[in-house]
Amino acid sequence: MIGRLNHVAIAVPDLEAAAAQYRDTLGATVGPPQDEPDHGVTVVFIGLPNTKIELLYPLGDASPIAGFLEKNPAGGIHHICYEVGDILAARDRLQAAGARVLGTGEPKIGAHGKPVLFLHPKDFNGTLIELEQV
Amino acid sequence: MIGRLNHVAIAVPDLEAAAAQYRDTLGATVGPPQDEPDHGVTVVFIGLPNTKIELLYPLGDASPIAGFLEKNPAGGIHHICYEVGDILAARDRLQAAGARVLGTGEPKIGAHGKPVLFLHPKDFNGTLIELEQV
Repeated sequence: MIGRLNHVAIAVPDLEAAAAQYRDTLGATVGPPQDEPDHGVTVVFIGLPNTKIELLYPLGDASPIAGFLEKNPAGGIHHICYEVGDILAARDRLQAAGARVLGTGEPKIGAHGKPVLFLHPKDFNGTLIELEQV
Repeated sequence: MIGRLNHVAIAVPDLEAAAAQYRDTLGATVGPPQDEPDHGVTVVFIGLPNTKIELLYPLGDASPIAGFLEKNPAGGIHHICYEVGDILAARDRLQAAGARVLGTGEPKIGAHGKPVLFLHPKDFNGTLIELEQV
């Protein structure tokens, strides 16, 4: 069911410093900051040959990562995203197996303009998993 | 400098259950458990089309992930691994930029039989980074 690892998302306390570190010290391909007001984050994409890293920084007053950064002031890995072909079929299969889908259970349009769902970390080894339909 | 994302390592409290969940519920390609006594872990590899997930479970009395699981009883993402072409050049570049390399600074032979180093999470947005020479 799950396909490619679409991205690893890392919440960072200083987006400019983190982007500079990936560009200058780690020598990766780093994009410009992109505000995603619908998702409460500013994102910098790090392009790797086989997948990408997303650096996340809070945007606005109700950012979903503000609490994470309060608990993890140095930053940390926030979630990983797996691609699926059919997000409703994936959701139904997961729920039938007893796994919890966050929110209403209906897919939302994610930061890449595609339907996404998040799975409860307690049901997946403490890992917040995003599913993105591709 | 950094190349492919070699793997995402997730420490899990129940290796059999986690492997069954990735195989049966998430529908991924799951390998058999492999004991790595030199590294204090039992590993299950999850093959994705573009990278892999490594499920880690403590092996022996001095496992490097025992403390992590004590702090995170449900499990959690333990580290991510980037590939590099020349691990000594990578180390020198990182240290020149003020980043801390864990341990002696000399590469060890990792779980894949290749030289690896770990970077200090406090210097990298709370993320434990493994570099593996490929």
